[in-house]
Amino acid sequence: MRFATVGLGDRLTGAVVQGERVLTVSASSAVEAYSHRDALEYTGELDAATAHFARVSPEPAHIICVGLNYRSHIRELGLAVPEYPTVFAKFASTLTGPRDRIVLPEGSDQVEQEVELAVVLGRRARRLDVDQASAAIAGYAVANDLSMRDWQHRTSEALQGKVADRTTPLGPYLVTPDEVDNARALRLRATVDGELWQEGGTEDLLFSPEQLVSYCSRFVALEPGDVILTGTPGLRPGMSGRLAAGMTLASTIDGLGSAINPLVAESAGA
Amino acid sequence: MRFATVGLGDRLTGAVVQGERVLTVSASSAVEAYSHRDALEYTGELDAATAHFARVSPEPAHIICVGLNYRSHIRELGLAVPEYPTVFAKFASTLTGPRDRIVLPEGSDQVEQEVELAVVLGRRARRLDVDQASAAIAGYAVANDLSMRDWQHRTSEALQGKVADRTTPLGPYLVTPDEVDNARALRLRATVDGELWQEGGTEDLLFSPEQLVSYCSRFVALEPGDVILTGTPGLRPGMSGRLAAGMTLASTIDGLGSAINPLVAESAGA
Repeated sequence: MRFATVGLGDRLTGAVVQGERVLTVSASSAVEAYSHRDALEYTGELDAATAHFARVSPEPAHIICVGLNYRSHIRELGLAVPEYPTVFAKFASTLTGPRDRIVLPEGSDQVEQEVELAVVLGRRARRLDVDQASAAIAGYAVANDLSMRDWQHRTSEALQGKVADRTTPLGPYLVTPDEVDNARALRLRATVDGELWQEGGTEDLLFSPEQLVSYCSRFVALEPGDVILTGTPGLRPGMSGRLAAGMTLASTIDGLGSAINPLVAESAGA
Repeated sequence: MRFATVGLGDRLTGAVVQGERVLTVSASSAVEAYSHRDALEYTGELDAATAHFARVSPEPAHIICVGLNYRSHIRELGLAVPEYPTVFAKFASTLTGPRDRIVLPEGSDQVEQEVELAVVLGRRARRLDVDQASAAIAGYAVANDLSMRDWQHRTSEALQGKVADRTTPLGPYLVTPDEVDNARALRLRATVDGELWQEGGTEDLLFSPEQLVSYCSRFVALEPGDVILTGTPGLRPGMSGRLAAGMTLASTIDGLGSAINPLVAESAGA
């Protein structure tokens, strides 16, 4: 199934997406709709072309990002293949919708995109092995771990370059694993104003979604709605540039849809 | 003033603490009591000796920890004095009360204490200068950034060694700045079963509470109840050891009280 969180007046509601049909349901978000997928009441219908898609998990208790997980990215940085996932956090306040304007933070002039496969938890996960972890995954979504490189590289910890308010789009869809042919063979790409800036495939992932859920569940008790960003493919220096106001960033994973976010300057308001 | 969050039956309530008197008020936590400090209704009285103190900020939107902020600790690690604060996150699920048992996570055999001065935000803080930041501080509290060193040092990012469930005590009191003689001259210490394992003084802080609030407010919009852990003094190798089940950890800051947490093995249950 394919779930979404959509705006309905001034509130959010869960929805089931079938082709161009967006069927709103008795749930407050994509994640809650997933949790109640066997007992959903349909409450209305929207057109996919005009519906306002919001982040699929509105308030995750934990957002965990993997820093180095594509072999191509690790090679690009000249690093050894790591034994353990390198992880840092984002805040719920970092997330935004897949159609929202992203306000580029004024304090940074080195903002770069990182298209990523997001894994969304469907149940509590504590010390799971890889098979159990697989069953705890509600589904997959498109994300972009927008990064303020100047702030990120000020210290040994990435956090301060990773958590500007509402800069990480998550969506439009939460797609259950049975609808994804092979999560180890998904094509990811980021385009800026239609030009390809980044691409890769999840066959290049060092730690799989299941391995990451299992690993993270060993140091923190994960909860339904939690999000793991699985890392970004290599950035291909020369191919990409710095993001700037006026551009539109599209983050796409085949089968999972696209987050399409116009970038605006902070003075233009949120 | 001195605020607390205390258990009342199966819920939490805010309280004002006056000596041994704990006056419960019409607020759900210490932070909310602070926010409504000019219009509190008193709802009852508890004895400080028997009241169950909980974490002063139950669900912060942002918990930001400073990794290297005591000159003594920086020297101990043989590092240069950093230009910027090194920061990482904790989750709300990492916090626990100042009287709760702490379950030592089974996967680590290198758990160490880090007594820290916590700063709690009283209002929204976005791009504040140091003077504005000072006015945004609701108060101070005792915290202990319990750290799983084996996990912390697996990668360049500390997160996975810092977020075991309910391992960071925060409290017992939220003490407003006017009750603190000099936040730059507070004595901190951690004792284990009554033996001194760590001590220091905030005169040794590299970045002051106000500077940290100002700095963090430049990369994320802070909210009321948010918590900044300001870092830990040097650990004095040889003086301290590894924490183990059966020990009791006391974290104390003069004027702010003590968090006193028995440590238990995971098999003993939470």
